[in-house]
Amino acid sequence: MDPRLDLVRRSIRDVPDFPKPGILFKDITPLLSDAEAFEATLALLEADARRQRTEVVLGIESRGFIFGAALASRLGVGFVPARKPGKLPAAVDREAYSLEYGKDALEVHQKSFRAGQRALVVDDVIATGGTARAAVALCRRQGAEVVGVSFVIELSFLEGRKALPGDIPIHALLTY
Amino acid sequence: MDPRLDLVRRSIRDVPDFPKPGILFKDITPLLSDAEAFEATLALLEADARRQRTEVVLGIESRGFIFGAALASRLGVGFVPARKPGKLPAAVDREAYSLEYGKDALEVHQKSFRAGQRALVVDDVIATGGTARAAVALCRRQGAEVVGVSFVIELSFLEGRKALPGDIPIHALLTY
Repeated sequence: MDPRLDLVRRSIRDVPDFPKPGILFKDITPLLSDAEAFEATLALLEADARRQRTEVVLGIESRGFIFGAALASRLGVGFVPARKPGKLPAAVDREAYSLEYGKDALEVHQKSFRAGQRALVVDDVIATGGTARAAVALCRRQGAEVVGVSFVIELSFLEGRKALPGDIPIHALLTY
Repeated sequence: MDPRLDLVRRSIRDVPDFPKPGILFKDITPLLSDAEAFEATLALLEADARRQRTEVVLGIESRGFIFGAALASRLGVGFVPARKPGKLPAAVDREAYSLEYGKDALEVHQKSFRAGQRALVVDDVIATGGTARAAVALCRRQGAEVVGVSFVIELSFLEGRKALPGDIPIHALLTY
């Protein structure tokens, strides 16, 4: 295994019973606060983003902001935040997605992308894939070309990949 | 004026009546999505952070994550997220602060800092200063030395500086 990937894996902490009993939560905060582990994570995400010739990064609120914005800075490209409803001040496009119980939505300011701009969607974790699917739909609705979807962690037993369009490369550093 | 600072200023959009009638909201999303403006912003924040010999960056949820995490990556240091209550999975320290109506709080995972670690607090905007004051208090409670508080925008008529301890350098790229 790439020693950087091993460092990333060792820096993620399991927290039992969060957000509710029976769930084992993958906590990335030890990875963030460790300079070497954070650097390793971003370097691995960056290599993939460069391979996809990324021209803009969309980060999903709010842990996706952490990885997405740092990645955009390293690539020298712009950053577009996808937010929960009501947080963005100007006119937005909205995409709803299903939760275990009920619905939620993501919003992006209108005209956030140039036509054909190569967009990479970034979040910390892919679980059921609902938020990532909504983010991809927003990029496409605004004329961007989604060149990839990148995560630090994939919870493969939740089969989030199946929620995403089959023609988009999906990249996850770690799979559980 | 530094041409980078002029670019930052021109990239911020005024949105009237958000979040409520009569408020003129400073929207940073055009700055983020413009690669040159985002780079200029981060370069200016980075210069100040290096002057303070920053060893770790604390970013305040959630727009502070965008600037703080990108800044930490550029500095090669770790990143600590300060979050709204209930978002962090493990044991936290909490600091309450006052809002215009009511109260809110920030949380940081316990043991996020090493004793004496030089911490820089980052957010997009300083308004009344309540959240920044809470963030500074959390750093200090965990033994960090707060070497500065950095913002992209200062809304000086709200006098947020007065809420912060007088011995900490406060840096804002733009003042309104």
